[in-house]
Amino acid sequence: MAEPKGQVVGLLVSSDDKPGVLYRVAETIFRHGGNITYVAGGAKRQEVGAELQVEVSGAPDTEQLMADVRAVEGVTHVSLVPTLQAVYGKRVIVIGGGAQVGMVAQGAVSEADRHNIRGERISVDTIPLVGEADLAAAVRAVAHLHRARVLVLAGALMGGDISHAVREIRDAGIIVVCTSMAGSVPDVADLVVGDPVEAGVMAVMLIAGHG
Amino acid sequence: MAEPKGQVVGLLVSSDDKPGVLYRVAETIFRHGGNITYVAGGAKRQEVGAELQVEVSGAPDTEQLMADVRAVEGVTHVSLVPTLQAVYGKRVIVIGGGAQVGMVAQGAVSEADRHNIRGERISVDTIPLVGEADLAAAVRAVAHLHRARVLVLAGALMGGDISHAVREIRDAGIIVVCTSMAGSVPDVADLVVGDPVEAGVMAVMLIAGHG
Repeated sequence: MAEPKGQVVGLLVSSDDKPGVLYRVAETIFRHGGNITYVAGGAKRQEVGAELQVEVSGAPDTEQLMADVRAVEGVTHVSLVPTLQAVYGKRVIVIGGGAQVGMVAQGAVSEADRHNIRGERISVDTIPLVGEADLAAAVRAVAHLHRARVLVLAGALMGGDISHAVREIRDAGIIVVCTSMAGSVPDVADLVVGDPVEAGVMAVMLIAGHG
Repeated sequence: MAEPKGQVVGLLVSSDDKPGVLYRVAETIFRHGGNITYVAGGAKRQEVGAELQVEVSGAPDTEQLMADVRAVEGVTHVSLVPTLQAVYGKRVIVIGGGAQVGMVAQGAVSEADRHNIRGERISVDTIPLVGEADLAAAVRAVAHLHRARVLVLAGALMGGDISHAVREIRDAGIIVVCTSMAGSVPDVADLVVGDPVEAGVMAVMLIAGHG
């Protein structure tokens, strides 16, 4: 996905577990000129009602923002946390089935390890999956995954609606790599790599060092 | 993380790229009695200002909700999309460095492939990482990762603040597995598995078939 411009701050917001908290927090962020780029509910501890991780770009005064969010009805605690981008970085998404998907993941994890040890942050997220409809839905959803940059499709045969989905997410700025396979996906991907381990390595190299 | 109760619907909301859209969408969802469980900005195509994937639980009338979100100032298009839970399912998170992290990922991907081919949805998300501070931050953030259920720590030596972080996320409901290693992490994990491939397999088995 496109990265938000300017500094992004991560806020962990604890609150009573009732509706309307996010709406009121969003209103507060809006009044600060900020833009919410990510929200996810957190795990619930026994003693806490609900937790939200909220990421905000474009709000100039973080301390005042935190004070104002703290004052929102229902909010019990606000703390600054690292953004998911800072902690987990850019995401390589690996989708496919059988032996290939594990080999692509292996190549990508090994290459990401070599980059991350020198200070980069690249994650490798794998969903083993088969079947045209399920694969097409999973490919389409990559365009709406936080921090996703490159998709590797790993398998022996992919085409039909999967190829339509590949075109759509390429239009949305996602790089698509695939292993050598039957079907029309190799015709619409950015890059076709014969060896699945090498396909994983290449996917990481394509996004490494580009901020 | 704890799963929201009741049906969750995924909405893809296209809008002009200006602040306040999420705040007004959140207000609309609040008026429908709904709870926002996930929001992420999407990739930006040339012709579209901004896209948000918003997941909502507890709103009884999806059609009216979509109509009302469509009427929000700045919103240009609203469509129903599968939730990330439906598409990618539960997440196994693998964190660590060196040879072990790739072997854990391999075991987990291979086992998830066997479950998913029978209709389950389990993803394996890996961040190769070393260093106490970076590892502790990555472990802590697992509690705020959408759909994360189990963490596998893979390495040769982990302790100190990483062990504190492990206790915190266990309190938050995340299962923690680790490979055999030096340091105090094996003392605080739910499960220690000697072979890294087997650790990945076990992590998937621990969350498979539990909804």
